[in-house]
Amino acid sequence: MLRLPSSLQRVINEFSKLPGIGPKTAQRLAFYLLKKDNLDIVSLSNAVAELKQGVNFCSICHNMTETDPCSICNDPTRDHSLVCVVEEPLDAQALDKSGQFKGIFHVLGGVLNPLEGIGPDKLNISSLVKRTNQLASEKISEVIIATNPSLEGETTAMHLARVLKQEAPEVKVTRIARGLPSGGDLEYADDITLTRAMEGRREY
Amino acid sequence: MLRLPSSLQRVINEFSKLPGIGPKTAQRLAFYLLKKDNLDIVSLSNAVAELKQGVNFCSICHNMTETDPCSICNDPTRDHSLVCVVEEPLDAQALDKSGQFKGIFHVLGGVLNPLEGIGPDKLNISSLVKRTNQLASEKISEVIIATNPSLEGETTAMHLARVLKQEAPEVKVTRIARGLPSGGDLEYADDITLTRAMEGRREY
Repeated sequence: MLRLPSSLQRVINEFSKLPGIGPKTAQRLAFYLLKKDNLDIVSLSNAVAELKQGVNFCSICHNMTETDPCSICNDPTRDHSLVCVVEEPLDAQALDKSGQFKGIFHVLGGVLNPLEGIGPDKLNISSLVKRTNQLASEKISEVIIATNPSLEGETTAMHLARVLKQEAPEVKVTRIARGLPSGGDLEYADDITLTRAMEGRREY
Repeated sequence: MLRLPSSLQRVINEFSKLPGIGPKTAQRLAFYLLKKDNLDIVSLSNAVAELKQGVNFCSICHNMTETDPCSICNDPTRDHSLVCVVEEPLDAQALDKSGQFKGIFHVLGGVLNPLEGIGPDKLNISSLVKRTNQLASEKISEVIIATNPSLEGETTAMHLARVLKQEAPEVKVTRIARGLPSGGDLEYADDITLTRAMEGRREY
């Protein structure tokens, strides 16, 4: 029986652990690397090893950053009275890239998921409440909850809304609109999306 | 504008260089790693760094191996008079896994590709000719050319057949059968496959 060298097998095993990469893809990647220069291999290895160095989290919004506070919390041209709550740093990036949102962010670091043992204490919720109560130069007037429109995201949004109503009743709490995505097709939309689209209809 | 920390961006860039991994997937992988323990990250980094250590090539068949000669060339229970020529180590592994082939291998290390500057001198062809001429305990009686049924694979196979006919005329040279794959559908088969399948037909 043909056995792969153990160092090669190890790389295959490590790649297989990554999400969306099965054993076949892992094998292909490992063989690809094997054909590359040592320099390329070292470059990948070092980048991975140093991944967490230089990645900090903003003490205000918990977004990923190199500086603390992050470039957004530190930006005086943004509207600091408008806070958008997202699940992950990538969500903040997506919203920021769209160019429409000029407020600041708050990254929860996940969603409520009782099955996986993720309760409210595991998310950055208390710091959000603290932010809304803070006597900052610009007081927070609106919190937009922009968690994903998934089961967990909706549950988390509802929990957040309840907590904020209790702890900071003077702050307006809103939820991003759910409806048909731009370029979407009514015919293929699922029932929940259609229901939300009807509920959220607006007058011309 | 939100900028990702440079160490994170570096990992995304490195992952993007891998085949089949676009910028979105690279981003997803990098963020996934960021959430893992340092131990997991170091484990991946080290595995990649040490990839080439311990990967040697068999001096006889050029297959990947930890020992030289490889476990197959060293196996006295295999038929050393039957040599199967493949493009890459993975091909040898696939054939070996099928369990039907009991001979030994010869890995070319690629295919002829003039556009990419890969000529006969870049492949392990001369060592194959030498093997067929060697006065080994078990003389090679048949060489099965099992390069891929692609344009380059077929060209390489034809070149090999010609060289072997000249340099080792007493050795039988065969090509693996091309035809409809098991489980395949005649209706969806391409013309070349159908032509090959007709050409290769056998009497019951």
